[in-house]
Amino acid sequence: MKWENFTKLESYKKLASAKTPDIKAELDGEKGALRVQAYQVPMASGMVYNYAAKAVDDQLIDLLQELADEAQLQEKYEALYNGEVINTGEKRLVLHQLTRGQLGEDVVVDGVNKRQFYKEQQDRANAFANKVHSGRIVNEKGEKFTTAVQIGIGGSDLGPRALYLSLESWAKVQGTLKMEAKFISNVDPDDASAVLRSVDLEHALFVLVSKSGTTLETLTNEAFCKDALAKAGLDPSRHMVAVTSATSPLANNPDYLDSFYIDDYIGGRYSAMSAVGGVILALAFGPEVFARIQAGAAAEDEACKEKDVRKNASMLDALIGVYERNFLGMGVTAVLPYSQALSRFPAHLQQLDMESNGKSVNRFGEPIDYKTGPVIFGEPGTNGQHSFYQLLHQGTDIIPLQFVGFRSSQMANDVLIENSTSQQKLCANVAAQIVAFACGKDDENRNKYFAGGRPSSIIVGDQLTPEALGTLLAYFENKVMFQGFVWNINSFDQEGVQLGKVLAKRVLAKDTDGALAQYSELLGI
Amino acid sequence: MKWENFTKLESYKKLASAKTPDIKAELDGEKGALRVQAYQVPMASGMVYNYAAKAVDDQLIDLLQELADEAQLQEKYEALYNGEVINTGEKRLVLHQLTRGQLGEDVVVDGVNKRQFYKEQQDRANAFANKVHSGRIVNEKGEKFTTAVQIGIGGSDLGPRALYLSLESWAKVQGTLKMEAKFISNVDPDDASAVLRSVDLEHALFVLVSKSGTTLETLTNEAFCKDALAKAGLDPSRHMVAVTSATSPLANNPDYLDSFYIDDYIGGRYSAMSAVGGVILALAFGPEVFARIQAGAAAEDEACKEKDVRKNASMLDALIGVYERNFLGMGVTAVLPYSQALSRFPAHLQQLDMESNGKSVNRFGEPIDYKTGPVIFGEPGTNGQHSFYQLLHQGTDIIPLQFVGFRSSQMANDVLIENSTSQQKLCANVAAQIVAFACGKDDENRNKYFAGGRPSSIIVGDQLTPEALGTLLAYFENKVMFQGFVWNINSFDQEGVQLGKVLAKRVLAKDTDGALAQYSELLGI
Repeated sequence: MKWENFTKLESYKKLASAKTPDIKAELDGEKGALRVQAYQVPMASGMVYNYAAKAVDDQLIDLLQELADEAQLQEKYEALYNGEVINTGEKRLVLHQLTRGQLGEDVVVDGVNKRQFYKEQQDRANAFANKVHSGRIVNEKGEKFTTAVQIGIGGSDLGPRALYLSLESWAKVQGTLKMEAKFISNVDPDDASAVLRSVDLEHALFVLVSKSGTTLETLTNEAFCKDALAKAGLDPSRHMVAVTSATSPLANNPDYLDSFYIDDYIGGRYSAMSAVGGVILALAFGPEVFARIQAGAAAEDEACKEKDVRKNASMLDALIGVYERNFLGMGVTAVLPYSQALSRFPAHLQQLDMESNGKSVNRFGEPIDYKTGPVIFGEPGTNGQHSFYQLLHQGTDIIPLQFVGFRSSQMANDVLIENSTSQQKLCANVAAQIVAFACGKDDENRNKYFAGGRPSSIIVGDQLTPEALGTLLAYFENKVMFQGFVWNINSFDQEGVQLGKVLAKRVLAKDTDGALAQYSELLGI
Repeated sequence: MKWENFTKLESYKKLASAKTPDIKAELDGEKGALRVQAYQVPMASGMVYNYAAKAVDDQLIDLLQELADEAQLQEKYEALYNGEVINTGEKRLVLHQLTRGQLGEDVVVDGVNKRQFYKEQQDRANAFANKVHSGRIVNEKGEKFTTAVQIGIGGSDLGPRALYLSLESWAKVQGTLKMEAKFISNVDPDDASAVLRSVDLEHALFVLVSKSGTTLETLTNEAFCKDALAKAGLDPSRHMVAVTSATSPLANNPDYLDSFYIDDYIGGRYSAMSAVGGVILALAFGPEVFARIQAGAAAEDEACKEKDVRKNASMLDALIGVYERNFLGMGVTAVLPYSQALSRFPAHLQQLDMESNGKSVNRFGEPIDYKTGPVIFGEPGTNGQHSFYQLLHQGTDIIPLQFVGFRSSQMANDVLIENSTSQQKLCANVAAQIVAFACGKDDENRNKYFAGGRPSSIIVGDQLTPEALGTLLAYFENKVMFQGFVWNINSFDQEGVQLGKVLAKRVLAKDTDGALAQYSELLGI
C-alpha cells in the first residue's frame, strides 16, 4: 500500500487543471431535471445522497475516481477494518466499525477477538439496562431509576448526546423511552449545578465515561455529582456506573455499580457505538433500539466498501469535499439538517471532522503544504434560513452546504395550514434552498441579486429512525476517514489538544510567569 | 458625512502595506506581561476587553485609529442614533438603541417620540407580566400561568432564547425565576410537538412574535399551538399575547389577551431589547431583571461613543476584525464563551453578524470588490477544547478567536478538587488557551508542534449578571455596526433570505419545473 502526500499524486495534477462546471448552467431546464435524477447514490437504510447541485460533472467525477483509486481509498479502508495500525501517531489500530459489525477478518489483539470484546461489553450493558428497566437494579429504597445522567466530555458527550436528542421525541411517541437522559460535560460548575437541579437525584443513575479514567473535567464533575448524592443522603456507589478502559482506575472499582469497557482502538469522537454511547442509549431507549442504530451504521459501513465512486455516497462526498477545499479554496462547510431532532448533530460532526482532519502534518509527522479539514458549523433548518443564510446566499465567500432532510416527521403530529402540512413546508423549504443557492436570481437591483453557483448536496431519508440515524453517523465517520486518506494525514489522533491542558495545569499550580501569569490574574486565579 | 467604499480610503492603502507584528514575539517574557496589562479597554458593567494576543502593535492601532476617523465611524454612529435613514435598502431608521436609552436627540417619526414609544410598550409588557405573576391575569380556572412559550423564528427566537438561557440558572439561584420559558421556532412539526409535550398546557402562556404578522413558520406554529390548546378544551385567546407591529393583522386582535408593539426601525436580529425579548423576559425573570439587562446594554452603547479606539472596546474589536478579514485573509471567527450559561449566545451572534454583514453590495446597492463579514461559530469552553480546538491549534487555516470569561460562577455551587474549584479550573483553561494559541510550542516531533501565532481576544467580567449580559449584547451589536460602516455596507437589511421563501411558495403551490420539480419529488412533496 502506498501512503503519499496528496500533491504527489498524478490525479492531483489532473484535478488542478480540470475545468469546474457552472452549477447554474448544469441545473438549467430539462437537462437540470435529468441531472437531479441521475446524480444520486443510494446509502443504507433506504437513504440517498444527491449531489446534483455540486460543481462536478461526469468528467470531474471520473477524475475523482482516479484519485480514489490512486490514493487506494478502498485498500486503506480494508486495511483499517482488518486491523492495521492506521493511527500512526499513537501506534494504534482503529476499530470503531467492529462495535457494530464484522467487515472483514477477525481482529485479534493479545489473544482477544475485538469484535467479540465490543459485543460482550454491549451485551453486558444491555443486561444491565434490562435489569434497571425491570426493577432488578434499584435505588436505596428499592425504587426504579427514572433518569440516566452521562458525565463525559468531547467524544464521551457530543456523539451520545446528539444521538439521544435525535431519538428522544421519536422514542416518546413510540413508547420506547425507558428513561430520560441528561448530560454533564463542562467543567464550568454551573453546568453540573443546573443539571443536578433539574434531576430527581434519588432516582438518578449516573454513567461516568472516561477512557483513561483521568479526564480532568469528567473526574471533577464526578466528584460534583457524588457530593450532591452524599448531601442528599444517598450512597454514590449505588447510583453510578463507569465506562472506561480495563486498565483505568475506574475499572473493577467498588465505587461503581458496574463497569463497562472500551479500549485504545476507538477514539473518543468515533466511540458513540461502543459502550461510550451504548450504556446511556440502552438505558434511555432500551437495547433493541440501540441495536437498530448499530445495524444502520453497520449497513452503511458495508456500503462504503464499494470501489465505484458513483455507487459509494460517503466516498464521493469526501472526494467532492476535497475538490472544494483544495481546488476551489473553500475553507468552511455548513451542515444543515432540516430536522429539529438533529439539532446537536452538527456539534457532533464539528468534533468528528475538525478534530480528525484539522492537521498540518502527514501520517508520518512531516509538514504538508496543502489544506486539510475545513471548519464545520450548522444549525437546523428552517431556523438557519432566518439567521446566517444571508451570508450563505449573498456573502463574499462561497460556503459548501450539506443538507439533510426526511419526508416524514418523527412524531406524526401535524397541522394543515394553507393546504400544506408543516412537514411539507419544511421539505419545500429545503428543496427551494438548494435551487436558490445553485441557480441564484438575476435582478437589476443588485441588492436583490443572487449570484448562485453555491454548491450543496442533500441526504434524504423517509424518516429519522434508529437505522437512519446509525447510517448518518457511519456515513460521516467514513467520509472523514476517506478525506484523511486523501490528505495522507492521521485522522485518529489529536495532539493539538495537549498544549492547553499542560498550560492549564501550570496555571492551577501557580507555576506561571510573563503573559500567562498576567492572563491568570486577569481571570482572577 | 462621507460614505465611501473601504478600498477607496487612504487608510486602506496604509493598512495594506503595514507590517503585521508576530504575536508570539510580542507576548514573550516581561514585555509580554506588560502588554497583557496595557492592551486592555474597559467596557460597561465593569468588564474589560483584552487584545494582547491579537496581531497588532501600537503602530497598527494608530493606523486603525486613522481608519476609524477617515471612515467617520463615530459620526455615523451618531447619525444612526439621532435618526438618520441608515438602513438604505429598506429606507428605514435604525433605532434599536432607543429601546434601552436615549443616546442623543429625540427621534420623532410621524409625531411619535420613538424612545417614548418603545418605553411605553415595555411599561405595558411589565404591567402585564406583573399581573400574570400576581395572579390578576389567570387561566380559565383562575389559576396562575407557570410557563411562557415564545413562538418566533430568527431574531424573534435566537436573541431572546440566548438571553433567557444565559440567566435561567442565575435567576433560579437568586429566586427571581418567575416562570419557566420555552421556545418554538422551526416549521418542523417535531419542534412544536416536542415543546408542547413538555408543557403543562393549562398553565402555559404563549407569546407570539412576528413583526409583519405574516412569517410562515410563526403563523404555522401559532396554529399548531392553538390547535393543541383547543384539543385540550382550552380557549386559545386566553393563552396568547402578540408582539407585532401596530399595522399587522395580529395587532388589536381579540384572538389575543393583549398585544405589544414594535416597529420597522428595529431589525429582528437587533430586537432582543424591544418587546420581542421584553415580554418573554419580563414574564420569565420579572421586569426588574429585564431593566437591568437594558441598563447594561445602554451603558455599553454610551461607552461606544468614544472616538479614541484605545478607549472603545467594541470599535477596536471591530477594526481588528476588519484587519484580520481584509489584510490577513481570515474568513472565520470563533466565539468561545467559558460559561455554560452562554451556550446559545454564539448562535445569536451568528445571526447578528452573518445576517448583518454577509453582503456583496455597498449601501448604495453597488457591487464591492473586498471581503465583508466572516463566518461565525462557537461552543462553550471547556467543551470545545475536547472537540474542534484540534483544528484551531494545528489546522491549516488560522481562525481568530473571541473568548469570553467570568471570574465567578452564576450558581455559587462548587467543589474543591486537587486544590482548585471547578470555576478556577474553567478560568485556568481559558488563560492557558490564549497563551497556547498565541505562543505555540516547539517540538522535534512535528505532530506535537504548535506553530502559535493564532490571534485571540478575551472579554472578562466578574460574573454573568443581567448587566453584564446586556453589555455583551450591545457590545457585539455595535461591533457589527462599526464593521458595516467600514465596509460601507448596509448591516440592517437581509435581502438574501427572500429568494428561498419565494421558491418554497412555488413548491407548495406545485408551480415548479426542471430541477426544482425534481428536488420537490425527492423530498416527497
